[in-house]
Amino acid sequence: MKQILLSHGGGGEETQKLIKELFFKHFSNPILEKMEDAAVFETNSKLAFTTDSFTVSPIFFKGGNIGKLAIAGTVNDISMMGARPKYLSCSFIIEEGLPFEDLERIVSSMAQEMKKSGVHIITGDTKVVPKGSADRIFINTTGIGEIVYEGISAHNIQEGDIIITSGTIGDHGACIMAQREEIDMEGELQSDCETLWPLVEALIKENITIKAMRDPTRGGLSAVLNEWAEQSNIGIEIEEENIPVKDEVQGLCELLGLEPYTLANEGKLIIAVPQEEAEKTLSIMKNHPLGKDAQIIGKAVSDYTGKVILKSPYGSKRIMEPPAGELLPRIC
Amino acid sequence: MKQILLSHGGGGEETQKLIKELFFKHFSNPILEKMEDAAVFETNSKLAFTTDSFTVSPIFFKGGNIGKLAIAGTVNDISMMGARPKYLSCSFIIEEGLPFEDLERIVSSMAQEMKKSGVHIITGDTKVVPKGSADRIFINTTGIGEIVYEGISAHNIQEGDIIITSGTIGDHGACIMAQREEIDMEGELQSDCETLWPLVEALIKENITIKAMRDPTRGGLSAVLNEWAEQSNIGIEIEEENIPVKDEVQGLCELLGLEPYTLANEGKLIIAVPQEEAEKTLSIMKNHPLGKDAQIIGKAVSDYTGKVILKSPYGSKRIMEPPAGELLPRIC
Repeated sequence: MKQILLSHGGGGEETQKLIKELFFKHFSNPILEKMEDAAVFETNSKLAFTTDSFTVSPIFFKGGNIGKLAIAGTVNDISMMGARPKYLSCSFIIEEGLPFEDLERIVSSMAQEMKKSGVHIITGDTKVVPKGSADRIFINTTGIGEIVYEGISAHNIQEGDIIITSGTIGDHGACIMAQREEIDMEGELQSDCETLWPLVEALIKENITIKAMRDPTRGGLSAVLNEWAEQSNIGIEIEEENIPVKDEVQGLCELLGLEPYTLANEGKLIIAVPQEEAEKTLSIMKNHPLGKDAQIIGKAVSDYTGKVILKSPYGSKRIMEPPAGELLPRIC
Repeated sequence: MKQILLSHGGGGEETQKLIKELFFKHFSNPILEKMEDAAVFETNSKLAFTTDSFTVSPIFFKGGNIGKLAIAGTVNDISMMGARPKYLSCSFIIEEGLPFEDLERIVSSMAQEMKKSGVHIITGDTKVVPKGSADRIFINTTGIGEIVYEGISAHNIQEGDIIITSGTIGDHGACIMAQREEIDMEGELQSDCETLWPLVEALIKENITIKAMRDPTRGGLSAVLNEWAEQSNIGIEIEEENIPVKDEVQGLCELLGLEPYTLANEGKLIIAVPQEEAEKTLSIMKNHPLGKDAQIIGKAVSDYTGKVILKSPYGSKRIMEPPAGELLPRIC
């Protein structure tokens, strides 16, 4: 098996062979191996349910690949609802001719990434399409989590609540853009693609009041904050110099005339907490490997309802516009 | 909005507009409209969980389109586990330039098809990829059902159990093949694409003992029966003349040198029941619009362990081989 062939997606013997020899080898668990039309599980919890199709290009990038991203991305969406990631479905659309070696590398990264949250793939699907009908590989993961912390919502934010980022902004978007445009930033740019559940779990265990929480993926920090301002019907004031941005990300942004706030992140979370819990939240984050660069970046205010305001160190203010137009496609 | 643009998948304002003006218009329900990172629902049932990515080409075909298929296909997989379809996720990968009108036609079919089982889309994702990176549109649906009948399994079949098909075999595969090859069968060929839950519910309500049940999609009847024979470690003997095949499907098969048993179906189920319940099962099916062409096609036997045997009306026997090789790609 050197390349993926159409027959691997036909539903016949070759598909069975691919499932058993590759997917079961890496994803093995008792529910998956039953191989019925659907996986069966029991729960007595309220559940979170989310889906994402990953079409990132290139499929291998610094700091990860489409497989790692497909696990971390969906696990993070579940985590952002205060839910412990439990089960995933996984569906591959593969372009005929993909080297088997590439697929195995992707699948093996997925298995690796799942260990970080304890999530399991329990049902799957594989389609192979003729050359030119897809670009290499697309992966859909759909996830189910058991809600352990209730009430997180974009509608919850009130005047005085503090906005914190778990780390630097724009890393994933900058990395993909640089690699696609073949801009050499001395190899420093790397995706932040990472499973965030352990950090979320730490915040929940320490009884932090989580008002709103999001991972700023497509549309970046700007998309999250603008959605919060609109849905909570509040203003959000951000101290521009407090937003952590890596030098190499800033450099790329200056080179291309971009703002880091609209670039995608794949291993960061933005959280809104009551003012009195802000320092404790920050300290939990800074003591966790996933939050070592955490920063308080702003607060909810009663002015500027529905808007996000960027304050410069010199006191000037401008609106952080919601992202619009042709953002970089195939970022995730 | 005449065509789908890259910006519709960027996660910014245009994506929000597409979600609100198209998806919410057709898929509207309270959970979906919360627009959080994940949908939240409660259940105290055992759940069935299944995923499928649909890549069918052409995307519009006689008897359906990729949207109708994406709902019916996943709802059917849930139903085959004895589960009532409850929730779906839906993820679109759209090639830039798809006419908005086509997308709306697809989305509207999906909404229509969901009414047949009462399932709801409660979470979704939209990616738009540049021209040439995908072929028009791919749809992933992942479904959750509440199990109302337990114990259906490919491992359950015993000697004497009767095998019944809910209707004619090969319609979907033949339709797609004819349309793709531009073979004109006088317009008679039509996909059987259909939501099967109402028929399954009727069988459960009438207390039929369902030993095994599958919808014979990719790999057709042959894939299902061979899997059952292998997993239940039993022989399956099929009376060839009792397999219902439409004249136009038979005609296409003869023209192309195919067997209808390996062609995909998208609105049929194969069921194994105890001998004493076979006539009752058949009668329930024949009285239901989804099973009017139902037929008893064979039985489980102690000979030929792990094999499927086709008996001709003249008494001769041959093996029904499991499907292998390059089956028609992009059939579903």
